[in-house]
Amino acid sequence: MIKHALSVTRADDFARWYQTVIAEADMAEESGVRGCMVIRPWGYGIWERIQRLLDDRIKATGHENCYFPLFIPLSYFEKEAEHVDGFAKEMAVVTHHRLIQQDGKLVPDPAARLEEPLVVRPTSETVIGAAFSRWVQSWRDLPVLINQWANVVRWEMRTRMFLRTAEFLWQEGHTAHASEAEARDEMLRMLEVYRSFAEDCLAMPVVAGEKPENERFPGAVATYSIEAMMQDGKALQAGTSHFLGTTFSTAQNIRFQNAEGELELAQTTSWGVSTRMIGGVIMVHGDDDGLRVPPAIAPWQIVIVPMLRDGPEDAAVMDYARALQGELAKLSALGEPVRALVDGKAAKAQAKRWGWVKKGAPIIVEVGPRDVAGGNVAVIRRDRLYQDSGKLASAIEPRDAFVGAAAAMLENIQQALHADARTRLDAGIRRGVTKFAELEAHFAEGERYPGWVEVQWSKPSGAALDAVVERLKALKLTVRNVAQDAAPADGACIFTGEPAVERILVARAY
Amino acid sequence: MIKHALSVTRADDFARWYQTVIAEADMAEESGVRGCMVIRPWGYGIWERIQRLLDDRIKATGHENCYFPLFIPLSYFEKEAEHVDGFAKEMAVVTHHRLIQQDGKLVPDPAARLEEPLVVRPTSETVIGAAFSRWVQSWRDLPVLINQWANVVRWEMRTRMFLRTAEFLWQEGHTAHASEAEARDEMLRMLEVYRSFAEDCLAMPVVAGEKPENERFPGAVATYSIEAMMQDGKALQAGTSHFLGTTFSTAQNIRFQNAEGELELAQTTSWGVSTRMIGGVIMVHGDDDGLRVPPAIAPWQIVIVPMLRDGPEDAAVMDYARALQGELAKLSALGEPVRALVDGKAAKAQAKRWGWVKKGAPIIVEVGPRDVAGGNVAVIRRDRLYQDSGKLASAIEPRDAFVGAAAAMLENIQQALHADARTRLDAGIRRGVTKFAELEAHFAEGERYPGWVEVQWSKPSGAALDAVVERLKALKLTVRNVAQDAAPADGACIFTGEPAVERILVARAY
Repeated sequence: MIKHALSVTRADDFARWYQTVIAEADMAEESGVRGCMVIRPWGYGIWERIQRLLDDRIKATGHENCYFPLFIPLSYFEKEAEHVDGFAKEMAVVTHHRLIQQDGKLVPDPAARLEEPLVVRPTSETVIGAAFSRWVQSWRDLPVLINQWANVVRWEMRTRMFLRTAEFLWQEGHTAHASEAEARDEMLRMLEVYRSFAEDCLAMPVVAGEKPENERFPGAVATYSIEAMMQDGKALQAGTSHFLGTTFSTAQNIRFQNAEGELELAQTTSWGVSTRMIGGVIMVHGDDDGLRVPPAIAPWQIVIVPMLRDGPEDAAVMDYARALQGELAKLSALGEPVRALVDGKAAKAQAKRWGWVKKGAPIIVEVGPRDVAGGNVAVIRRDRLYQDSGKLASAIEPRDAFVGAAAAMLENIQQALHADARTRLDAGIRRGVTKFAELEAHFAEGERYPGWVEVQWSKPSGAALDAVVERLKALKLTVRNVAQDAAPADGACIFTGEPAVERILVARAY
Repeated sequence: MIKHALSVTRADDFARWYQTVIAEADMAEESGVRGCMVIRPWGYGIWERIQRLLDDRIKATGHENCYFPLFIPLSYFEKEAEHVDGFAKEMAVVTHHRLIQQDGKLVPDPAARLEEPLVVRPTSETVIGAAFSRWVQSWRDLPVLINQWANVVRWEMRTRMFLRTAEFLWQEGHTAHASEAEARDEMLRMLEVYRSFAEDCLAMPVVAGEKPENERFPGAVATYSIEAMMQDGKALQAGTSHFLGTTFSTAQNIRFQNAEGELELAQTTSWGVSTRMIGGVIMVHGDDDGLRVPPAIAPWQIVIVPMLRDGPEDAAVMDYARALQGELAKLSALGEPVRALVDGKAAKAQAKRWGWVKKGAPIIVEVGPRDVAGGNVAVIRRDRLYQDSGKLASAIEPRDAFVGAAAAMLENIQQALHADARTRLDAGIRRGVTKFAELEAHFAEGERYPGWVEVQWSKPSGAALDAVVERLKALKLTVRNVAQDAAPADGACIFTGEPAVERILVARAY
């Protein structure tokens, strides 16, 4: 039996396992500030990789980055009632601009109360819409295609690192177009950017599709999402893309003169992904020894651990390690130079090895005096940590052979993680459930991790949809989305018995 | 006489010229939110280049990026009295976490008042110090070398785009060390990173040196800066590096067990540069036609403008432009692939040319049907815009010759901008002023842009320093710093007649 590196396994307690991975991999920690976390170098390094790779794709599709204010005056929200209803309950409000000492304590200065309180942005449609209204006069100014990388704040009552924090980091794209068709195309183009980014870079298979009416972004006409399946079978919404119609262009007065000289409202979109994606990576790829980071987003892809013993051989071992790092850095894998690190810290090699296993570095290479003498390296592939016997699968290889194979090994690890997750996603979706009682039974008992179920429905709206939502809520279920590649409906609505219109995925979710 | 592209020249009104460059180059604009600006794609693109290049240097010196909370509880500030005194007057304070509708208006919900108000970080020593106290137990945990890229807020009464805004973007490095010597070395190492970055990447020569006691960061034991000379002769503090001693380790309890098993306080540093640097780039390199961006930080280094006439030749012109872009993108200049753009927007070629002149793209290339036929390009070097006659210095060159010379031309422009600015800085510092009356006379009248003056002083402290500061303030002067490479003192203090201790630079400043 394998003795794993973590004190808790996924099967023991998935939620506690998740927190343990984050702590043991030094990814993040509670900050002492309510609902806010500190993202530590390994966690932030993964975010930097996500930023770099996704930013390239956002720019390649013609978008430019900007930066808009952190603070949004209350009056901006008053213009868009539905939008503010969706966010009003959870915003941080700045009311003063100075502190004074009072009875030995710092307090907001009553003389420095803001005339108009400012909201710390929960999302930037309103303030960016105001900018668009300045930028857009004529059809020649369209489309406007911009993006920003920023922090946003939503005052969440229950927080969970990476998945739901009061402050989080994200990118938010905002665009304005002359026609509805063009804006809808943009929404789908960015959905596809997210889908392919999740698959290619995060090795995280997702289902892309439209959210039901009740799950739309406040103010949106249509909301699409990518949904990933965690190892406990729950869904994680990992990115959204919205067609906003003229909701925000009406509120913020984004008008343009069309080619015929008439004034028209612009059609806008917005789309975003956040540090939440890192929570998804953990729950898709982690195992009972910690995280496994897909090589494309690993801050360090190959970590070389020199076996130092405070002895005379140490210098030769360090030289050997550094030379190896130099050779690896000349390689290219997944379209980029290989990122190799020598971990020369003052700690036991054993502790360092397991530290990197828990962090999930894709390849760990140990080199000691015997390896130096024999021209070898000891290689650990993080995605295949153990042999069938349960022993650590560390392979002694000639150094040259390892260097020659390293790039392909990284690409292979990327593919293997993706293939594993894809198999799990496909196996985790149950199809052909036609009766509500069947759905109830599926989620009532059965497996501990029941996964997702595809059912058909009549696409109810308004009060009829509310009733469906309530029935699902009783089972702790939500409608995730209508997969873009779903088969057409061919049966009856599981909720009403009416002819079905489309197939939906229902699941428990984060 | 040259008719320049801007409506106001540097000589007319430097302050208005600065605002005009920002507007005409589409770099930034007022946001409608007090003291906050919108950074538009060209301005933000320059910031992205600064981030990329400086981040590489910060990482190459062993630092890792993290992310810490935007909000800092008031109690964190109460622990460090001197620090809060320095910032207390200008902080945004969050007091509520929910809004409600009242008489048709949104107001902070009185039922959602925070027990402890939160400050929007003006800088992060306190909250990062709290993290360090968790991370540091033993000498083995030291040094801690971290950095974060973030937004910060200081409630400034008078704001000016890029130079002083309520919210701004920056990086803040924070480190903890076992010894004072090591922490002081760190402070100087990062000062040198800033100095060489400003010179190499921004083409902005600076004077690096220690600030006087009265200009120290609140809580610091020593503050060093890099100071750049703007074209109006004023100084701009473009980056600072602080040795904080045990100020914050005492307040936040950052203690470690040393090798002898005794508890010691860590020695900390912090250092930062901000979007203010972009203001420096404008005022160092801008001219009466707009901005001139050093190629190292230009979002696009070569902009190709196809001369389109809505005619049948357009397709061939666009093909020619795209092929040229492809050839340029294969080149390498300043250690990176060349960044070349085809501006295919629907606007007149003349308007596009002058748009890119005002934005300061280093090289602008125009191609029209005649160039296609002759295999030529028309090249405009932004740093040498006019011939002696005052005509635009656009040179028709064979396309191959241009492609062959383009990388060297970019490197030459980088050097030329730096050399110009260096000449101006050297010429702008007057030395050998030994009498206060002489200093007074220098700044009272004489040139419109009096530059900086080097004088010797006895390095007064406390009340004696206050008196000096007051005398300088009457002339609107401040002490910038003691240049690291200044000659030793060899005369009398210009303020007191006592033997001088060191040479200081005094100047008007932003």
